[in-house]
This record gives sequence, C-alpha cells and structure tokens, in this order.
Amino acid sequence: MARFVIGLDYGTDSARALVVNAETGEILSSSVKNYPRWSRGLYCDPASNQWRQHPKDYLEVLEFTVRDALSKCDPDVAANVVGLAFDTTGSTPAFADETGAPLALSPEYSNDPDAMFILWKDHTAIQEAAEINEACKASGTDYSMFEGGVYSPEWFWAKALHILRNSPEIATKASTIVECCEWLPAVLTGVTDHRKIVRSRCAQGHKSMWSAEWGGLPPEDFLSGIDPALAGWRSRLFENTETADKPVGHLCPEWAGKLGLSEKVIVAGGAFDCHMGAVGAGVKPYTLVRVIGTSTCDVMVVSHEEIGDKCIKGICGQVDGSVIPGMIGLEAGQSSFGDVYAMFRRVLEWPLRELSGLEGEALEEACGNIIPSLTVEAERIPVSESGMLSTDWVNGRRTPDANPLVKGTVSGFTLGTTAPMIFRSLVEATAFGTKAIHDRFAEEGVRIDEVIGIGGIALKSPFVMQTMCDVLGKPIKVCKTMQACALGAAMFAATAAGVYEKVEDASLAMSSGFSKEYVPDPARTKVYSEIYKKYLALGSFAEEALY
Amino acid sequence: MARFVIGLDYGTDSARALVVNAETGEILSSSVKNYPRWSRGLYCDPASNQWRQHPKDYLEVLEFTVRDALSKCDPDVAANVVGLAFDTTGSTPAFADETGAPLALSPEYSNDPDAMFILWKDHTAIQEAAEINEACKASGTDYSMFEGGVYSPEWFWAKALHILRNSPEIATKASTIVECCEWLPAVLTGVTDHRKIVRSRCAQGHKSMWSAEWGGLPPEDFLSGIDPALAGWRSRLFENTETADKPVGHLCPEWAGKLGLSEKVIVAGGAFDCHMGAVGAGVKPYTLVRVIGTSTCDVMVVSHEEIGDKCIKGICGQVDGSVIPGMIGLEAGQSSFGDVYAMFRRVLEWPLRELSGLEGEALEEACGNIIPSLTVEAERIPVSESGMLSTDWVNGRRTPDANPLVKGTVSGFTLGTTAPMIFRSLVEATAFGTKAIHDRFAEEGVRIDEVIGIGGIALKSPFVMQTMCDVLGKPIKVCKTMQACALGAAMFAATAAGVYEKVEDASLAMSSGFSKEYVPDPARTKVYSEIYKKYLALGSFAEEALY
Repeated sequence: MARFVIGLDYGTDSARALVVNAETGEILSSSVKNYPRWSRGLYCDPASNQWRQHPKDYLEVLEFTVRDALSKCDPDVAANVVGLAFDTTGSTPAFADETGAPLALSPEYSNDPDAMFILWKDHTAIQEAAEINEACKASGTDYSMFEGGVYSPEWFWAKALHILRNSPEIATKASTIVECCEWLPAVLTGVTDHRKIVRSRCAQGHKSMWSAEWGGLPPEDFLSGIDPALAGWRSRLFENTETADKPVGHLCPEWAGKLGLSEKVIVAGGAFDCHMGAVGAGVKPYTLVRVIGTSTCDVMVVSHEEIGDKCIKGICGQVDGSVIPGMIGLEAGQSSFGDVYAMFRRVLEWPLRELSGLEGEALEEACGNIIPSLTVEAERIPVSESGMLSTDWVNGRRTPDANPLVKGTVSGFTLGTTAPMIFRSLVEATAFGTKAIHDRFAEEGVRIDEVIGIGGIALKSPFVMQTMCDVLGKPIKVCKTMQACALGAAMFAATAAGVYEKVEDASLAMSSGFSKEYVPDPARTKVYSEIYKKYLALGSFAEEALY
Repeated sequence: MARFVIGLDYGTDSARALVVNAETGEILSSSVKNYPRWSRGLYCDPASNQWRQHPKDYLEVLEFTVRDALSKCDPDVAANVVGLAFDTTGSTPAFADETGAPLALSPEYSNDPDAMFILWKDHTAIQEAAEINEACKASGTDYSMFEGGVYSPEWFWAKALHILRNSPEIATKASTIVECCEWLPAVLTGVTDHRKIVRSRCAQGHKSMWSAEWGGLPPEDFLSGIDPALAGWRSRLFENTETADKPVGHLCPEWAGKLGLSEKVIVAGGAFDCHMGAVGAGVKPYTLVRVIGTSTCDVMVVSHEEIGDKCIKGICGQVDGSVIPGMIGLEAGQSSFGDVYAMFRRVLEWPLRELSGLEGEALEEACGNIIPSLTVEAERIPVSESGMLSTDWVNGRRTPDANPLVKGTVSGFTLGTTAPMIFRSLVEATAFGTKAIHDRFAEEGVRIDEVIGIGGIALKSPFVMQTMCDVLGKPIKVCKTMQACALGAAMFAATAAGVYEKVEDASLAMSSGFSKEYVPDPARTKVYSEIYKKYLALGSFAEEALY
C-alpha cells in the first residue's frame, strides 16, 4: 500500500484539505469549507478595516474537511496517511494563554475580537506600524532590514502593540502571541504549554523581525523603547524558530480520533500559504513563483553562497529557510493585481447599476460579463496602438520599495478612448509592475530564468498571462493544479514524515506538472521595453510630485 | 417706427436668423435651419477627417431663415430692417472663380468636395500645416507670431495648399480663395468681381497671417518657398482687410427680393462666430468672454496703448480690430471642454451598449442620463476628497502654447475610485485648463477682472460653471440669451447701418443682460489653488516625458 499525506491550506475565507499520494503526488481527493463565523461577518468591521477570525472557525473546518476528503478516498487510505501539514495566511497572530490557546477559546473572551486571530489584512494597527518604522530608522540596527525596510501594519508587532494598548485585560491575561500556522500544528500534536509551541521560521522570519543575525527577536530595549507596553514580551515569547520540513510531533489521541487518522501521523511545521505554494509549484534557484490573484505574492529561493551577506533592497522579506530549508527565501509582491481590474470593473458597473434598470440576477450577470467582454475587445487592440499608459498602484505599492501612499494613474486619453483601451492599459500596467519586481531582483544580483504562475488569474486569464510574458520577455509556466498551496503543504508533510529526505525531493517527485507554457513574442517584447521606460517615468513622477 | 436689424449666425450644422430691435436689442424672432446636404453626410469622410460644405447649403438656409424669422414679426418690421450681418465658422475657405463664386456652384464641379467650403474642423491638411510651421520657424520673421506661433491644419493656407496639391484642375480654374464670412456679404451685395470682395479683418488676421506689420499677407518668396504651388497667389488674393462694423454695401435687387427686404438694407462685414459672440456678450477691456461648448473659444480686447508692441505668447491670435474696431482682439481656447465629459460618457456607455441588453430609445435614454446622474453624484463629493487629479487635453491643447500631441491623464486611482469621482476630476481639469489660459493672459500683462460665459455649457451646467468659478476665484456672469453670436452680428449690422457710431455703443444698448452670476467660494478657491499646482506639474511631466 502507498503512503499518503494531507495538505491543509487555510485561506482568507475557507480551508481546504487535500489527500495526496506521498510518492507520486497524485491528488486523491479534496474538500473545502468556509469559516462559519467569518462567513456571517462576525467580529469584523469593514469601516475600521478590522478583520478577525475566531479560533473555533479554524477547528471546525479542520475536522470537517479532513473527514470529508478522506470519505471520498478508498477506505484504506486513512490508515496509510503518514503526515499532515498546514499552510495559512499570515501574519495572523492571536493572544494566547499559558496553554497556548487563543483567549477567545475561553468563555470569558469568546466574543472579544481582540482575543481572536487578527487576520493578515486587518489594518487597525496603522499607527503602531508607523511608530515601529520610526524606531527602526532611529535604531543603530534597522531590525526591519530583512523585511524590506518598511514594517507593515499587517504584521506581528504592530498588531500585538495595538491590542496591548487597546485591550488591557487581554494584555494582562495573555501569556504569549501565536501565529495561526504555529497554533494549528500545536493543537494537533496536543501541546498544552505555550513554551512548547514550535515557532515557524517562515512566519517569524518574515513578520516579527526574528533573525539569527541578532540572535532571535529584536532586543528588549528596542521593543520596550517603542512602547513600555512591549516590555517583557521578548523573553516571554520564544527564542528559536524551525523550518516547516521538521516534524512538530505526532497526532494526539484526541485529534487522531476526531480526524479518523492514526496517532502515528507526523505533523509538520507550519508556514505561510504562498511560501508552501512556491514549493508546491516547483520553486528552485533562478525560478520566480508568482501567486496571482487580487494581489500577487512572488517567491524565490537563493543559496547562501550566492547571496552572501547581501540584503536585497526594497523587497518584502529575505529569510533563511522560509521556503526551502537551507536556502534563503525571498518574498516580493504587487499589492494589487486582479484588484486593478476589479477597480475598473466597479467604475463600469456604475452605469449598469444606476441607469440600466436591471436588477437582481440579470444585473449581476451583466456586471459579471464586464471583464470577459473587455478582455475579448482589449485583446484585439495591437500593442501600443491605444497610446495609453497606466500605473498599477491602486492599492499602494508593495515591491519594489513599499509605498502605501502611491495611487494609480491612467494617461493617454483622447476623443477616441474606449473602455477596452483603458482595460488593456491596466493589464499592461500590472505586467509592468511585474517587470519592476523582476528587474529589481536582477539588479540586486538575483537572476531569474523562469517564471511559474499559480492562482486564479494564472489559470483563467490567458490575455493577462500572455501580456505579462511579453512584457517580461521570459517564458511563464502555469501549474496544472489549482491547489498548489495545499499540494506544497502535502510535500512538507511527506518530508516531515520521512518519505523524502529534503523538501526539494518531495517537490520534484510530487509535482503536478504544468498545464501551459506562455512564450514571449519578441516583437511585442521590444515594443513593451520602450513603453516600460515611460511607465517608470510616470510612476516616479507621480510618486514624487502627486502623493 | 423703430429700426430693426438681422443677425445671421452660420454654425457648424445650421444657420440662424435673429430679428432684433436695433435700438433696444429686443429679440423679435428667430429661425434656425440645418444645412440640407450636410445633414445627409454628403461630401464628408469622417475616416480621413474631411468635412466640406456645399455653398448651396448656405444660400438655401439663408433665404429660408430670414423669411421665416420675418414671418413671425409684425408685417411692417421687414420694411424697417436697416442692416444685416453675418458671423460664420472659420477658417472655412473655398476656391472661387473670377466672379468670386465657389467653384462648386458651376455645374462642372458641383459634386467636387475640393470645390466647396472646407469646414473649420477639416483635418486633411495636417501635412501642409507641418510644412508651413517649419517654414515659419526657418524664416527671419515668424509670420505665425500673431497666431500663437503654431499654424493649424484647420487654417487658410494649409487648406489652400492641400487643395492646390491634390486638385490640379481646381488649382487651374480658381481665381481666388474666399472665406465663408466674406462670401455671404459679397453675394448679398451683388459682387461679381472677386477683387471687390471685402476681406474680413477677423478671418484673415487670425487665419491667413495677414498683418499690417508686414503689409498684408506674408511675402511672395515666403509663400512660394513653402511650395511653388503657392506662387502668385498672394498678388491674386487681396491686399486690404476691413473690420466688420463697416458696410460692405446695400442688398442687391435679387437678394432684396429673395429675402423680402428693401434694397436700402446695409450689409455689414463678416467675422467669425465667437468674435461677434464676444461683442454680443458685452466684451470690453479686462473682460474675458468664453464660448463654452465641446471646446471653448475665449475672446478679449485690449487697447493699443496698453498692449504696445507686445506679442502675447502662446495664445491663438492677436489681431487689430478682429473683435472691436480700434482695439486689439485676443483669441484663446481649450480644444476640448464638453468633449472631455463626452469622452468619459462614451467610456461609460460601453457597458450599457454591450451588456445591458437595452436597445433603441431605452438605450439612448440610459446613455443620455449618464452625465446628469454623474453630475448629481459628483457635486456631493467635497473638493479634493477624491484625491484624483486630471488634465483636460483629450484633444490636444490649444492655449496656452498649442500642442496637438498632448493627451489627457487621470491620476489618483485607488480601490475606492468611483465613476462620479473620475467625472468630478475631469470637471476640475477643464476648470484648471481655464485657469491656465486666464493665468497666461495675466502673466503677459493682460488683466482679467471679469469672465462672461456663453454657449450651451454656460447656460446648462451649474456644477461645471461653479467649479470653474471656484478654480478661477473670479465671478462669472452668464448671458441671458442663448444666441449671443447672432445678437453680436445684429450689433454689427446696427453699427454698419449707422444706428450707432461704434460697435461698443451697440453692444451696450442692445445687450441681453445676464441670467446668472456665479460667485467664487474663497475656501474652495484656496484648496483648488494648491491642486492647480499639481495639475501644472502633471501636465508638464506628461508633455515632456510621455508624448
């Protein structure tokens, strides 16, 4: 009998369990479930950008999806599952008690959003992030240096400080702060002492300024200097972190029972979705893996020898072992990609919603046809024919050189401008944003030979992908599976369970392969390389003069 | 019995006759008629931007509108009409025979577009304009200096050269070239020798580089240096021009009969619509009159003493007597104004036309509601709240410093951008374009105390007008009459007929008054003055780096 592993992918709205043959990578079954409380909008406040998730949501979907996925397989598969691993969103931390349990699991705080997981996209800690950035710039060592030199309100310390300031009771009751991708493996392995939670190299290296370079988390005086409320937390939290290929432990009896699995099952360390997704997609040196959706997350790996002491400027993070153990993981991204098209779609929805007289399903259907119809027409416009040029920063810019204040620009309007011409220009702008990341890596000495795309847009938008390919002038492969993240988690599970010695071996053996390879058209690449210079000029101008 | 005059306004699509009490300015009646051949699209080719009008169109509507307007008045009004004047579009020239008749009136050329009037907006002579500009720059004297230093393909010599090159038969047969506003008075006064056509100071001063400064039209060697095809035309055309307050003659018996008027009726000189419109609106020193429609035409007058030898930089024209005899007329304008909103309307029409399922009248009604609905919502957005900033150059820029190559830009897109926010930004952009003209006059020493608006947008768009007023920080009055151009023609008719000594007297006595005065909000003016700096920066950048 073959051995099997389960990859668990915890996204923003739902979690998915994937049952995978650990030797061949064959996907046997899959199950996905929305978080029940989250689906009802509980604990969130869009007006203040407060996005919280209840730990019970995570546990309930875990039990359901694993059992449901196994029920779709041969009955003897469950008994031959050897490993299990989680990838989750992040930074998604929660204040937890002495046992490591988020405080919202105690009846006292079960309805307190500050006792729950603070989802990656929560923006309540903007003020705290600004203060952390100030402290980093004032400090002899810039502790944000491996996180691109700009600390985000979406990250660990900003969120922690925000809760410490605003929820004194939580601050007093809590013993630790735990990332979602650390907590789930701890639960499944029966950890009841927060000091025994295995900390994620990926999560902490990218989000809490943890680095071997300065012996772990930033020093006590730096943290308490930001706010005395942070005093003492450094020593209370943790010293070490582990890569996700290492076993965290075996399934505890309680969860083995709940999931219908053996207590022999190895639980691997947790990591963030895009990082495990990169492994699922086959990341290796000189290959850039892009998760392409509303935004993009771009992941690379590079050897210690090659990068040496160098700190890559203006990317999101650079962490030893965050993707593949033993290599430096590099993270970058565009803060809006599909969201650029969604913005224009909303602009064009206006006349349909206000003036067409359509309602209900008919209205939604018409709105839903906007991007497909724009795509058909925009594809027919020859490169540069429209004379339009745009920047893609409708949600600020993440990489290169994060700047949350910049905005999008569309130029080249004439009396003949049409909606498809604007759309084409926006698609080109997102591709130019991709090239800016690509070129930054190259300028910093990180060569890119190949690009791999995963995520919704990679699979569903040939026009967007071909434009990106033409702008980059490099081939782009698209992963066959829609579930590259969960497949990546399965690869980590297989490695932790000893099926493979290294994650790289799992990645090769269990690969889903590619469904398509885009090849650049040299003539279009040449035209785009000229337009790209204007994109850079327009962007620099707007950034300096307008915002 | 009072004395009456008839103002004839020849627009792009139709002509209007206005019967006016020459003493009080009271408008007794009006009649308008579309040009019959033009309405059917004859002789035009939108693809090549060829727009021609048959001289018979002009004559047929003349007879109809004058008789129709008179038929609406007391029967004894016709007998007491003392004067008549024309304003027309321009530069709208035609090649004519020895008698001054456009060649299209002879059976041989009755269907040849090159034998007809070449309408102001015809763009077939782009190449010829470029060569004329080159010659002007290479010449010791820049003969385009009083036309803003950039010669347009819409003007006299460019169109003339284009026909001379492309229609050798017309070139051989023609004895002269005549502007529409010169030909109509010649017809009515029975001129049968092209040398006796009274040439319009307004038309020739603004469009054919005629200037007293160099003794009339540019010298023979300059013209034949552009192309030998122009050789000999200077001496064949004319030497002198006249202001429009001077009588051209009396109605000839034929036309007195056709129109039902006395042969004593004085026909005044012709001029362009906006120039007579400025007089109709009450132009005087320190007052800027704007004709605001799809584009704007901005007219001022200034005394000889005040302007001296100065040549105002970057406006469209500066001609002695083109507006009010004895004063220097100054012309400027935005090449797109209402057209900026029309462009955005067409973008938003796309989803209605492609995806709503609406057809016919229902579709046109929904499209027609776009701008009114945008206006209601845009008006509610506080100044600068949207963070958007645009330039208005969707059809190039006319003033200041003509540049047909620049395009429009919209910046400040975020995930929250809406259609009304974009519209508001475009309205602000057209107002900033107005301020740029206003400031150029001021920088060149031409003070503006007051602005008067005429034309469709001035009367119908309070949101646009208030925004313009706030951006300028100056009051704007709007003329009561929709027919300021025809009323202006009536004022010239009254002056030529001797009812008044000077056009200024007619303008005061016959004024229609104002229907509304917009007053700037100082707080909004202050905010806009900051945003305007960014408008200038965005424009300079786009002009230098993108186009």
